[in-house]
Amino acid sequence: MSNEENSNQSSGKPGKFGLIEHLTRNAVIYNKSTITGPGDDSAVIDSGNDLSLVSTDLLLEGIHFNLVYTPLKHLGYKAVIRAISDIYAMNGTPEQILTAVGISSRFSVKHLDELYEGISLACKRYRIDLAGGDTSSSLTGMSISVTAIGRAGTDSIVRRNGARPNDLICATGNFGAAYMGLQVLERERKIFDNDNKIQPDLSGYEYIIERQLKPEFPAKVLTGLSSANILPSSMIDVSDGLASDLIHLCRQSGTGCRIYYDRIPVDNETWKTAEEFNIDPMIPALNGGEDYELLFTLPLRYAEAIKSVPDVAMIGHMTVPEQRCFLITNQYSEVELKAQGWENG
Amino acid sequence: MSNEENSNQSSGKPGKFGLIEHLTRNAVIYNKSTITGPGDDSAVIDSGNDLSLVSTDLLLEGIHFNLVYTPLKHLGYKAVIRAISDIYAMNGTPEQILTAVGISSRFSVKHLDELYEGISLACKRYRIDLAGGDTSSSLTGMSISVTAIGRAGTDSIVRRNGARPNDLICATGNFGAAYMGLQVLERERKIFDNDNKIQPDLSGYEYIIERQLKPEFPAKVLTGLSSANILPSSMIDVSDGLASDLIHLCRQSGTGCRIYYDRIPVDNETWKTAEEFNIDPMIPALNGGEDYELLFTLPLRYAEAIKSVPDVAMIGHMTVPEQRCFLITNQYSEVELKAQGWENG
Repeated sequence: MSNEENSNQSSGKPGKFGLIEHLTRNAVIYNKSTITGPGDDSAVIDSGNDLSLVSTDLLLEGIHFNLVYTPLKHLGYKAVIRAISDIYAMNGTPEQILTAVGISSRFSVKHLDELYEGISLACKRYRIDLAGGDTSSSLTGMSISVTAIGRAGTDSIVRRNGARPNDLICATGNFGAAYMGLQVLERERKIFDNDNKIQPDLSGYEYIIERQLKPEFPAKVLTGLSSANILPSSMIDVSDGLASDLIHLCRQSGTGCRIYYDRIPVDNETWKTAEEFNIDPMIPALNGGEDYELLFTLPLRYAEAIKSVPDVAMIGHMTVPEQRCFLITNQYSEVELKAQGWENG
Repeated sequence: MSNEENSNQSSGKPGKFGLIEHLTRNAVIYNKSTITGPGDDSAVIDSGNDLSLVSTDLLLEGIHFNLVYTPLKHLGYKAVIRAISDIYAMNGTPEQILTAVGISSRFSVKHLDELYEGISLACKRYRIDLAGGDTSSSLTGMSISVTAIGRAGTDSIVRRNGARPNDLICATGNFGAAYMGLQVLERERKIFDNDNKIQPDLSGYEYIIERQLKPEFPAKVLTGLSSANILPSSMIDVSDGLASDLIHLCRQSGTGCRIYYDRIPVDNETWKTAEEFNIDPMIPALNGGEDYELLFTLPLRYAEAIKSVPDVAMIGHMTVPEQRCFLITNQYSEVELKAQGWENG
């Protein structure tokens, strides 16, 4: 007798032990801090003299991902990137993840294998240990919870609340690409829905689609900062959107900010695609989200040193809180930044 | 502009910052290991010289809980118990949890407040710090992910794989109560569905319903073991069912087992209700699940010492693996234990 035969509710873990052993059978351990991996009640981790960093993230089908155009392997990869970016954003080193996946009856073991293939690939690339896993039934759709665990020295942790007025605002990579990639995928999906003889044409959009489906995290920038003896005063990973996450740094630090339109890095493909969609490219750059870039602030004394770290742009500076948060446009006018959007004024 | 207005996919975090601040505004810190709580990219934890234990758990509406008869406050409480039981099961002390909740549009902030009230209550009772939280939209239903973090000394961690033949098998509390409580709730729901003038009559079922809706964890048994200088050779928390979790200890330890029908603790109310439902009471006891009791094994030298620890029953012993896993019934016949069920032979 299983619970499920007798009620609507169950432990939700049919064949749990066998399935998770199958899915984690090839798990490789990269870090000596991983004492016990999958197969016990909890992961056991030795952080030595370092502090432990732990973050958890929930991805829900139809909200965070659409399986119509997201291969499961890419989804697994992206789920890992998303989780470990929260550890990097504290200037920590992610070393373990734990996964919990809920799947409805439309998914098979083959589907889970694909998902875990992507998880393993991201783990290999970023040297992360899959230290625990769990699977469960779900009524509808797929739910993925990923917990990331990492470590950082007491003196090297960077929080969201350490920025001061006049600190430089820096950002890695470029912004808005993942959002414009999503717009292209959505457009092609709608065309396909109307006439499924028309195959999606994604040529010319490779970069922005890759940023949407299989993002990477600029972990090397953290190594670069460390090598240059630069310790940011505050830091956050950009997942909700540059404007929203910058405002959050300001709120936590008790500052205002000024950023400059022409200094915000936007890739050519993003720019071109935004224009094709009749969108001001600065809108996805500021509010698109899912960029998985780093946004951080630096005391002015690092202004020269930061130039030696590749892939970092100085986009503005912190101000006193009374000056609030503004974007300075090309026309030398100021537009107030809003967490949920920016109105071109 | 928000993503949600423009596509089916979004960061899923409408008003994230404000909402989670509201929900965690009364969070109390009980443990000095909690260096940074909610409000940054990740929780920061100082385990000192201890090892860190981390476990994650996903609860899905319709699979793990039914909101028709589960008050949200109880659900929040139970979600915490479920998560921290994995830390206790390693002989650790849970100290932090991180939550991630996905809710569809049918839920309001008031609903989330109720959920977090239950989370806070369990945190207060077990002295757990809510060190991080996140909320997100969902297409349908509620999803709750809880990550539990704890600590244990290198020499005191108890794993699933340490049992040896002849070790005593011990269990806390009693079994099958939560499952029978669920059967009563399901029966009353069906009656109510047919005629919603009939109010549910739950008198006489208070204990088993409380075990289903608001379980507790026998944390004091671990203190008792420690005071008596007893270190189990293996341990697991019983969430999937006594038989299933015992078989798991056996598989991981490379043993078989014998447990005795008349030694398995079953509460009178569970027994009586099972008979009312024409179920052999041993079936929910062995396979019901959601007991949140501890199952552990002890080397024989502790046979006397364990008698001083309240709320622990010796229910059998480990054997060599060739003898497999059997229940010895009252009639002195043997019935093989199966992870997914037990057939009365």
